[in-house]
Amino acid sequence: MPSYDDFQQIATAVDDGVMTLTLNRPERLNAWTEAMEAEFRRAIEAAEADTAVRAIVVTGAGRGFCAGADMDILEAGTRGTAAGDATAAAPAGGAQAAAPEGLDRNYAWRFSYLLKVPKPIFAAINGPVAGIGLCMALFCDFRYMAEGQKLTTAFAKRGLIAEHGASWMLPRIVGLTNALDLLMSARTLMTDEAERLGLVRARPADGFLAAVQGLAREWTHAASPRSIGVIKRQVYDGLFQDLDAAWRRADADMVASFDSEDFQEGVAHFLEKRAPRFTGR
Amino acid sequence: MPSYDDFQQIATAVDDGVMTLTLNRPERLNAWTEAMEAEFRRAIEAAEADTAVRAIVVTGAGRGFCAGADMDILEAGTRGTAAGDATAAAPAGGAQAAAPEGLDRNYAWRFSYLLKVPKPIFAAINGPVAGIGLCMALFCDFRYMAEGQKLTTAFAKRGLIAEHGASWMLPRIVGLTNALDLLMSARTLMTDEAERLGLVRARPADGFLAAVQGLAREWTHAASPRSIGVIKRQVYDGLFQDLDAAWRRADADMVASFDSEDFQEGVAHFLEKRAPRFTGR
Amino acid sequence: MPSYDDFQQIATAVDDGVMTLTLNRPERLNAWTEAMEAEFRRAIEAAEADTAVRAIVVTGAGRGFCAGADMDILEAGTRGTAAGDATAAAPAGGAQAAAPEGLDRNYAWRFSYLLKVPKPIFAAINGPVAGIGLCMALFCDFRYMAEGQKLTTAFAKRGLIAEHGASWMLPRIVGLTNALDLLMSARTLMTDEAERLGLVRARPADGFLAAVQGLAREWTHAASPRSIGVIKRQVYDGLFQDLDAAWRRADADMVASFDSEDFQEGVAHFLEKRAPRFTGR
Repeated sequence: MPSYDDFQQIATAVDDGVMTLTLNRPERLNAWTEAMEAEFRRAIEAAEADTAVRAIVVTGAGRGFCAGADMDILEAGTRGTAAGDATAAAPAGGAQAAAPEGLDRNYAWRFSYLLKVPKPIFAAINGPVAGIGLCMALFCDFRYMAEGQKLTTAFAKRGLIAEHGASWMLPRIVGLTNALDLLMSARTLMTDEAERLGLVRARPADGFLAAVQGLAREWTHAASPRSIGVIKRQVYDGLFQDLDAAWRRADADMVASFDSEDFQEGVAHFLEKRAPRFTGR
Repeated sequence: MPSYDDFQQIATAVDDGVMTLTLNRPERLNAWTEAMEAEFRRAIEAAEADTAVRAIVVTGAGRGFCAGADMDILEAGTRGTAAGDATAAAPAGGAQAAAPEGLDRNYAWRFSYLLKVPKPIFAAINGPVAGIGLCMALFCDFRYMAEGQKLTTAFAKRGLIAEHGASWMLPRIVGLTNALDLLMSARTLMTDEAERLGLVRARPADGFLAAVQGLAREWTHAASPRSIGVIKRQVYDGLFQDLDAAWRRADADMVASFDSEDFQEGVAHFLEKRAPRFTGR
Repeated sequence: MPSYDDFQQIATAVDDGVMTLTLNRPERLNAWTEAMEAEFRRAIEAAEADTAVRAIVVTGAGRGFCAGADMDILEAGTRGTAAGDATAAAPAGGAQAAAPEGLDRNYAWRFSYLLKVPKPIFAAINGPVAGIGLCMALFCDFRYMAEGQKLTTAFAKRGLIAEHGASWMLPRIVGLTNALDLLMSARTLMTDEAERLGLVRARPADGFLAAVQGLAREWTHAASPRSIGVIKRQVYDGLFQDLDAAWRRADADMVASFDSEDFQEGVAHFLEKRAPRFTGR
């Protein structure tokens, strides 16, 4: 069984199939640090390996979600000592691990490994989100946001550029024009506008985290974990494939699914008109 | 003149430039079968060849649109006898036909040949749509849906994967996040939410089919059939091209259009302030 | 200092960091001519070189924005004398300039050079827009449109095809289905529907141009011009890159930004809680 303890800057809890990962520096609005990043990745990898976990919810402790990079990091940047992605992207297996090839190159970066985790990841944006905190959320599969909160890309107001894959991923979520707006202007949006642009889905602040956890639980109990994992890979791979390659692979995946326990159960529970009991195999 | 008769599981009718193709197994909510698929494709090819047809409307008989694959097919899958796309994708010319090359590879699959038909195809989703029925609709150019109906991808609840190009096409229609939602959760949406996500356009249930037929007729009588055919190819090809390749081809298409009868008529009816009489040449 | 004078078919004015470029054939609803195109490009290049200009606003004189190609050009087309993009796309440096390579090939066409201008370009669509006028607006970064105005792609009603990159760019702005609708039907939309489809953002007709100028000024004074230029390149390049290539380049851009004056100022004004004074260096 994977270990989730010994975390200093995050906290984790698993309940009924959902792991909640809480950024836990509330006194700094959960500003992102290198230590937090290492713990975050370790927790995600533990959840990925944990068959009891079907979905991951990422949220922030206190009144913030993630206020961006800790100013300590930014100031280090002005002194020329900030670490680039290159080190952050080193595979968990260590520097000796083989370089990723083919489509997998796209999943080897600071946050893009999240796209490869075969379980849905929900960002539960409970409070202000900015900069690198937003980048992380862009690489979650779903973004829910409490009503009345603030969101900004921040970079252009700091003299920075669209970091950590944001310039690539944001247009694929909100369309080209909205992405240019959010990244160039770096203006601050409230939840309702962020929802209108397609960046988040708004939920009432009251009972917010429980609502997202409930949704994550509901979706992943009603559907096959095996199916969800394959589908997540299909959708992201499809961003790098033409239709011919995607369809060819989908046909192979389809044939393989016919041999799965979850397909047997998927047909059986339907014919027997009962709730499914998927195993993920 | 192409023949539309001798169909068992579909029905067709051509009226004033619009061919209506009706999935016709109302007692099974028009569940998809291999026989239906063969007839469907034959009817589409007839409409493509029929110069009297300017638009195609696909709908369902009775209270359903298409409830997905017939459970007979699914159960055959559990016995390992289901046919994959490989056979379905065989070109109409037979197994001896040359393999498609270049961009055309993308148009050689189970439903993706619809993208290559140089006439607009409207899915008129009159009732419940699920699974393979939704996949077919994704490869229609337009999806209209009667108010108060249900839609689901279904696959993840059956232990299946995103079949038949859905994982590739859905994100290009509704965006990345909505596609992940619909495919991973396999939850059932009502028409109004499907419209909000950009998947369909809602129309009142009363007079629904006639409304879609009227729209198809209106659009294709006011514009050049030749232009529509070229534009359809341009838009889908553009999904596989960079801007340079698309623009280069568009310039060649533009020059060619100057020699067409429809361009002469397009300028003439405008200058003469009268309705156009396009020939499609 | 660049020269903006000597224009016959456009007019320009620079005020507080914003260059307004006005299409200036009001008696023809600013229909596009080859002379207008040459002046338009010259003005854009002057604004690009002018460090006093941080944003560009394109609008139309009188009650129109741009009614499409002048019918003189169209009629020339029917006589086989219309110039294709090939000549229009000749680099400003003249026919002897080297052909663009790599990603830059995408930015060498009639309007696509606008994507390469490292300053935000706002189309302020004050009145009717059609055909080539809409194509030009598609290659602006933002499209604002006065309430109650009309928009159409026009091509399919003229027997023409989707010219000047429209078939490639429109789906990336409004999604696949809406793009097919607008290009195939060539129907006329009012501002409110164009906004609903994601093509424009509506603003009241009263005080329209001043509102867009104000927005352009506000955005570009609050953010680093250097950041904005890099981000614009990142976003458009990202349409032609996979995530791996985009992230790799973003990391290099990030490291370079740490050495910029604007990053020093971006951190300083934040810590000092004052308005920024970015230099763009």
